[in-house]
Amino acid sequence: MNDTLYKPGGVTPGRSDSFARLFPGSHIRPVAAADLAAARAHLDSLTKPVGSLGRLETLAARLWAMTGGLPIKVEPALMLTVAGDHGIAARGVSPFPQAVTRQMVANFLAGGAAINVLCAANGLALRVVDAGCAGGPFPEHPLLLDRRQGDGTADMSEGPAMSLATCEAALRAGFALARDAHAEGFRTLGLGEMGIANSTAATALYCALLDLAPEVVTGPGAGAAPPMIARKAALVAQALRVNAKAVAQGPVETLAALGGFEIAVMCGAMLGAAAQGMPVLVDGFISTSACAAALAIAPELAGYAVLTHVSAEPGYAAAIRRMTDAAAPQAACADWGEPLLSLGLRLGEGTGAALAWPLVKSAAAVCNEMATLASAGVSAREEDRIA
Amino acid sequence: MNDTLYKPGGVTPGRSDSFARLFPGSHIRPVAAADLAAARAHLDSLTKPVGSLGRLETLAARLWAMTGGLPIKVEPALMLTVAGDHGIAARGVSPFPQAVTRQMVANFLAGGAAINVLCAANGLALRVVDAGCAGGPFPEHPLLLDRRQGDGTADMSEGPAMSLATCEAALRAGFALARDAHAEGFRTLGLGEMGIANSTAATALYCALLDLAPEVVTGPGAGAAPPMIARKAALVAQALRVNAKAVAQGPVETLAALGGFEIAVMCGAMLGAAAQGMPVLVDGFISTSACAAALAIAPELAGYAVLTHVSAEPGYAAAIRRMTDAAAPQAACADWGEPLLSLGLRLGEGTGAALAWPLVKSAAAVCNEMATLASAGVSAREEDRIA
Repeated sequence: MNDTLYKPGGVTPGRSDSFARLFPGSHIRPVAAADLAAARAHLDSLTKPVGSLGRLETLAARLWAMTGGLPIKVEPALMLTVAGDHGIAARGVSPFPQAVTRQMVANFLAGGAAINVLCAANGLALRVVDAGCAGGPFPEHPLLLDRRQGDGTADMSEGPAMSLATCEAALRAGFALARDAHAEGFRTLGLGEMGIANSTAATALYCALLDLAPEVVTGPGAGAAPPMIARKAALVAQALRVNAKAVAQGPVETLAALGGFEIAVMCGAMLGAAAQGMPVLVDGFISTSACAAALAIAPELAGYAVLTHVSAEPGYAAAIRRMTDAAAPQAACADWGEPLLSLGLRLGEGTGAALAWPLVKSAAAVCNEMATLASAGVSAREEDRIA
Repeated sequence: MNDTLYKPGGVTPGRSDSFARLFPGSHIRPVAAADLAAARAHLDSLTKPVGSLGRLETLAARLWAMTGGLPIKVEPALMLTVAGDHGIAARGVSPFPQAVTRQMVANFLAGGAAINVLCAANGLALRVVDAGCAGGPFPEHPLLLDRRQGDGTADMSEGPAMSLATCEAALRAGFALARDAHAEGFRTLGLGEMGIANSTAATALYCALLDLAPEVVTGPGAGAAPPMIARKAALVAQALRVNAKAVAQGPVETLAALGGFEIAVMCGAMLGAAAQGMPVLVDGFISTSACAAALAIAPELAGYAVLTHVSAEPGYAAAIRRMTDAAAPQAACADWGEPLLSLGLRLGEGTGAALAWPLVKSAAAVCNEMATLASAGVSAREEDRIA
């Protein structure tokens, strides 16, 4: 049990219960220490000094444990960019108008956004999920998956962002998306998002799930100036007060009260990917808040979650520290909380996950394809020859 | 002029002279501030918050300045893994026997090494350059380029590793390799290496070129234990004493005295790539020492050199700090000295450069392919709506 994921004074609900109730018949197999050890032994037999590929090796060992050994199958990868709108946007927490969510979905479908370019450059397939943008459904499009849970959430500073039933539907929709992706042949799932004001929702989730203070976690998001950041922090604090009862009930209730449609769908998709034995590429500040909720629902997810980049959002570091306390032992991975990339990204959409995908693919390839010292006739390390 | 690249008390030779003398008729065009500004303006017009792609944007601006603007052409990429042997190996500075250099070249040619796997996974072509491995020439092979400058260098702790004439031949061979790569259609050049004991040569080069102390720079290389590291540092100090006169004469003389065949070929190839307007992917501890020498010969190289990863070798940080003092202004790039990846790699071969190549390709793609706010009909940032 990962009680550090809950407020010390809060009620700790049965998390396995919520997973089993949400996804009956499904199960996330914990990564096994024996698999990690077998991977380590294989890596140490390859034509390189022991451990000389650093974090690529710890990642490779984890991929081995997630997927069941040689050959490690992580390709092809699918990126789901999930979009939704937020009632709190009306309170002035973003420098961009709410209409930008919808405009950017159109940009994704037209192929002009950063995530389109980075998926194409790095070899990921891309689908766009409408989890509930304001303004009604989009016209049909081959890249678009309609999983609308509403026309934007309600204002969480005045009550729950969505009902518990809606949140559960969003989680199940995400879980099914991952299952469908696996059935289609995908073996890695990346999750990214778009939603004006969703850094405010993510901030509230971190505060509630990880017992952090709004002043510590609240940052500029897409570029808020200091007065807007102060307003954002105050609204997060208000949302935590207004929804205190739901937060005390458990992670799904917390996600309903403070989350967003896209965050709940991503959370469900992460759990679904793990249940299929697939690595999950976790993007930046918002996607990682979905991961925090997913870890609270099923701690075994930790073994499948790969943090892809250090978000430039200042609250990210504090959130990751708390998450790592609980997740690293579950994943049997000392560097769980050290994202693969640190490039000062603060865009979302899945851009950091797309950029990190070649590292994941490379880690698997090293395990699968390198020659062993024995097969290549390369001398092993010898004792120091001169005393 | 970058006098910080020289010992305060040393003689500062005419670097432009050495470049012009070595490569008559060639020229490295300095990256232009106007090009960087034009790139910045273009990046700011794209459908993303300004600056939200972080270091990918500073990299993109530099690629624009190197290559001459839109579309930024950096593909395809070629990795040259350059091998050579070192006389100092006989003094017990590596836990691996010298035969491993040759065995690993055979492994490269057979396709079983980390660099083969990582080039294949990340879409770089790979060629192996024999710059002078002990044991004579290899049989012909389609991946192998014979640029042998000798049968391993001499022991630098007793005299110069190679003659000045040999070093100049190695530099010219590397320069020609880059020119040939460009003529063949390649638009990015990665440089990596193999050579038992070459971390000792690289350490001596850093000390001589950057005025650093052997105790600060010397580390475990491929895995030396503390007694071996102490011996290595003592031998570096001895090599610096024995070759003090050459070191005082200039960077080419220093490279001849303390370098290696593979290091000199890489140094020439870096200068050659820059002269062709191609980005140069600089790998880890050894490749970066070639870059230090190249910067001393032609400071304009800085604009074309992309540091790809933080080597796990402890002296790397000190070396990069000194190099950055001189290089960052030349490159007009505040984050010049922050490598793209930090994964604890200490393998060499070009592995870190191969892993970083997708980031370089991605940076160019963002510039080339993203929609502008205007073309996509996405609203720009608005003033804060609530005071």
